[in-house]
Amino acid sequence: MSHAEGITHVSDHATEFRLIHADDTWSRRTTDCEDVKGQLSDAKLYESPSEHGVTWMVVSPIIFTYRVMQCERLLDASNDTLLFGHIFNSTELQALKTNINGIKRFIVIDDTVNKLYGSQVAAYFEARNVIYKILPLPTTEENKSMLLVTKILEEVHKFGIDRRTETIIAIGGGVCLDIVGLAASLYRRRTPYIRVPTTLLAYVDASVGAKNGVNFANCKNKLGSYLPPVATFLDRTFLRTLPRRHISNGMAEMLKMALMKHKGLFELLEEDGKYLLDTSLQESEEHIGNMNKDAARVSTRLAIETMMEELAPNLWEDDLDRLVDFGHIISPELEMKTLPALLHGEAVNIDMAFMIYLAHETSLLTAEEKSHILVCMRGLELPLWHVDCTLDLIQKSLAERLKHSAGRLRMPLPTRLGQARIFNDIDNSILCRAFKKWCDEQRVDQ
Amino acid sequence: MSHAEGITHVSDHATEFRLIHADDTWSRRTTDCEDVKGQLSDAKLYESPSEHGVTWMVVSPIIFTYRVMQCERLLDASNDTLLFGHIFNSTELQALKTNINGIKRFIVIDDTVNKLYGSQVAAYFEARNVIYKILPLPTTEENKSMLLVTKILEEVHKFGIDRRTETIIAIGGGVCLDIVGLAASLYRRRTPYIRVPTTLLAYVDASVGAKNGVNFANCKNKLGSYLPPVATFLDRTFLRTLPRRHISNGMAEMLKMALMKHKGLFELLEEDGKYLLDTSLQESEEHIGNMNKDAARVSTRLAIETMMEELAPNLWEDDLDRLVDFGHIISPELEMKTLPALLHGEAVNIDMAFMIYLAHETSLLTAEEKSHILVCMRGLELPLWHVDCTLDLIQKSLAERLKHSAGRLRMPLPTRLGQARIFNDIDNSILCRAFKKWCDEQRVDQ
Ligand SMILES: NC(=O)c1ccc[n+]([C@@H]2O[C@H](COP(=O)([O-])OP(=O)(O)OC[C@H]3O[C@@H](n4cnc5c(N)ncnc54)[C@H](O)[C@@H]3O)[C@@H](O)[C@H]2O)c1
Ligand SMILES: NC(=O)c1ccc[n+]([C@@H]2O[C@H](COP(=O)([O-])OP(=O)(O)OC[C@H]3O[C@@H](n4cnc5c(N)ncnc54)[C@H](O)[C@@H]3O)[C@@H](O)[C@H]2O)c1
Ligand SMILES: [Zn+2]
Ligand SMILES: [Zn+2]
Repeated sequence: MSHAEGITHVSDHATEFRLIHADDTWSRRTTDCEDVKGQLSDAKLYESPSEHGVTWMVVSPIIFTYRVMQCERLLDASNDTLLFGHIFNSTELQALKTNINGIKRFIVIDDTVNKLYGSQVAAYFEARNVIYKILPLPTTEENKSMLLVTKILEEVHKFGIDRRTETIIAIGGGVCLDIVGLAASLYRRRTPYIRVPTTLLAYVDASVGAKNGVNFANCKNKLGSYLPPVATFLDRTFLRTLPRRHISNGMAEMLKMALMKHKGLFELLEEDGKYLLDTSLQESEEHIGNMNKDAARVSTRLAIETMMEELAPNLWEDDLDRLVDFGHIISPELEMKTLPALLHGEAVNIDMAFMIYLAHETSLLTAEEKSHILVCMRGLELPLWHVDCTLDLIQKSLAERLKHSAGRLRMPLPTRLGQARIFNDIDNSILCRAFKKWCDEQRVDQ
Repeated sequence: MSHAEGITHVSDHATEFRLIHADDTWSRRTTDCEDVKGQLSDAKLYESPSEHGVTWMVVSPIIFTYRVMQCERLLDASNDTLLFGHIFNSTELQALKTNINGIKRFIVIDDTVNKLYGSQVAAYFEARNVIYKILPLPTTEENKSMLLVTKILEEVHKFGIDRRTETIIAIGGGVCLDIVGLAASLYRRRTPYIRVPTTLLAYVDASVGAKNGVNFANCKNKLGSYLPPVATFLDRTFLRTLPRRHISNGMAEMLKMALMKHKGLFELLEEDGKYLLDTSLQESEEHIGNMNKDAARVSTRLAIETMMEELAPNLWEDDLDRLVDFGHIISPELEMKTLPALLHGEAVNIDMAFMIYLAHETSLLTAEEKSHILVCMRGLELPLWHVDCTLDLIQKSLAERLKHSAGRLRMPLPTRLGQARIFNDIDNSILCRAFKKWCDEQRVDQ
């Protein structure tokens, strides 16, 4: 499905056709044909004779476009963003704003978030005269399944979403956004949806890409799709009410990006991690002192930008060599096995901590770099080890990965602070040695 | 999500970035930057300052590629197609053929088709030493729901599909292919699947595009996605066992393409329709006489090619102006309302028959053209009228369409034999007049 593939498999005997639109009708033209009056498509058709008839090939690019927008006071009635921020086309926007009657929005909100912000959300849509429905759901990791997707679909259908400008809005953590994203991608083969992340993890990670999904058969995110939202609205003030543990949780994904590709971000997390935790990433007068008061703004921006760099060129994960998989090699199994003990970011951090030992044992990282990283993790109040993360689980996870990724391990490992490469050969004796050292140094008695 | 949109909504103040891959890492570069060592992505990032931070935009094209291949003796053990026909890359193919051990295939097959061809399918995979599982399912229109999708997902998961070269194969009519396509598109966010149509309707229509789906809340194909199969294998010999009514059923979709854009195909159906029905589109010595013995080959090829022309440039249906919607304006409601009385193609034909009256009443078609078309429909043994297709249902269907398609009706209507345009204004009095004439001339007492 990648570009390269699209080219290699066209047989030598194939005739290539372009497609031209005129008088409401598409028609094919051979590429040497001069007559191209009308609109030309980016799609192509190939036709070749085969043993018993014809073989056609369709090559059709679909362009996915979405916006990720930082904003403030998203729930202020005077703020247009939540209602219109996803509409790119200015003519369409003008038309909507002048004829505001009958605008519909369907909102799915995490139960806890609803208790904290539900009345504000309702007040917003009331003030704007919108026909709306708010559906609060217990979007926890344990409930992250097709059951909640179906529940959403039923309610959306009852409510009625008519136009492609009428969106489903998801307000909550990564679980809520993932479930709603899948429901929206299924309804009428896709319905536009908006993500409003209210956890740090969702703010810097689950909101940035196209992926959605639910757990299935006790496997993490086994079902899902790659339909991006029309827009994501990032408002850091939601984090004020987020428990400290969940701030740490989100920091793990930021640290992942720092370790893979941004030394500056790593240094920021190392120096200002505690400050970020203390302030829940809010701009705060009282905590300032020696701290970098821009730390929250700068670190989240860097996390998002580095993430986007990796996701945008690989939106459908056609390329299996992915730096963003760091921390996600062992953690999916660990997270599901320990559910609900470990949060997603915590499982990711335990995975990363082991990988740091492995990178050191493989002589990719110096002892000093290793120690820097581990100290930083501890500063972010993240777990570095877990009793259920056994050597057996690690080896099984690597074997699984090998099976699913076209015969290569494709394991991202840091090669110095803020740099990484993908590795395919990991010596098992080194793996065992790294595991032993990791346990010796990081085991915590429970 | 269309290309045009992708361009209009980039703000004037946005910085445009390209993405470059080097040392396993993607990084952004402004477009004026000369340093482009490494692999360049087609994706782009835009960044612009907004009121309270930054707004990013991701624009990322995904190229969908699939093959539709006519073949014969698909179930012959000596035929590689079913096993390897979806693999485009010759190196990969060579590697697979030399190391054939452990190849896995998961097959979902329609219950009726299983009774007729199941043992042949099993024999094929036995002979090829494949690890396989055949799952027969009652894939009827009434069962076309998420329940069967979930059933497939559970069985696929139990069986284990490891690699992207290990496919799910769907063998059956349009219902089976649609259900399996949706299951495959969900499993691990997409699993490659193959379509083997065994009905004429699936052969010329349901197999050609990217759409899949199931019914939901009593609405036709309300849930689904647009993931094309890796390949479709077309073997007309399956049609030998297809009941005559289902041959007619498939002819309706062929007639649709003929009416919309191919006079030659219309003439073929008009002249050789009965012959095609009598022979179940098989090459036949005994029936030849005056008939065009290539009729089956030529007519199916034309139906597929005209269909593909319309689908390829609009694979995700971003463009709402679609000729292929002809016959699908009223029929979805009619089909669900009469379930299981009317087959899909039958409902489509009733819809088309009414539209022919409307086109005549609007002076788009002459009386002679109208009569030609109605005679052809009757020759194909398709219903032209139904008691449940009331004026009320027609008007409701048009209102629904208007609501869902950005304020315009976008109704395809033939303007002469083999040509059509899209219309947005239909006068209600003309509609009523057409309806009355249609009933007067076509009503059948039941
Ligand atoms: N789609 C992606 O690309 C992607 C990326 C990373 C993670 N994920 C998924 O995200 C999930 C984890 O997300 P998460 O950590 O946000 O978990 P979560 O959605 O379970 O939220 C964590 C907890 O915080 C509560 N909460 C949310 N916002 C709050 C607020 N403002 N104030 C107080 N409490 C609040 C929630 O009720 C919940 O109990 C995982 O399922 C993971 O697979 C997806
Ligand atoms: N995805 C798309 O683009 C698309 C396009 C058109 C139609 N469709 C869908 O396709 C469905 C209709 O497809 P269909 O008409 O193939 O219906 P179907 O799948 O119900 O098959 C019709 C009947 O024929 C039987 N059958 C199948 N193959 C046979 C064979 N070789 N010999 C004897 N019996 C056989 C089946 O058991 C079934 O009873 C509808 O649900 C429609 O929505 C989808
Ligand atoms: Zn993650
Ligand atoms: Zn159809």
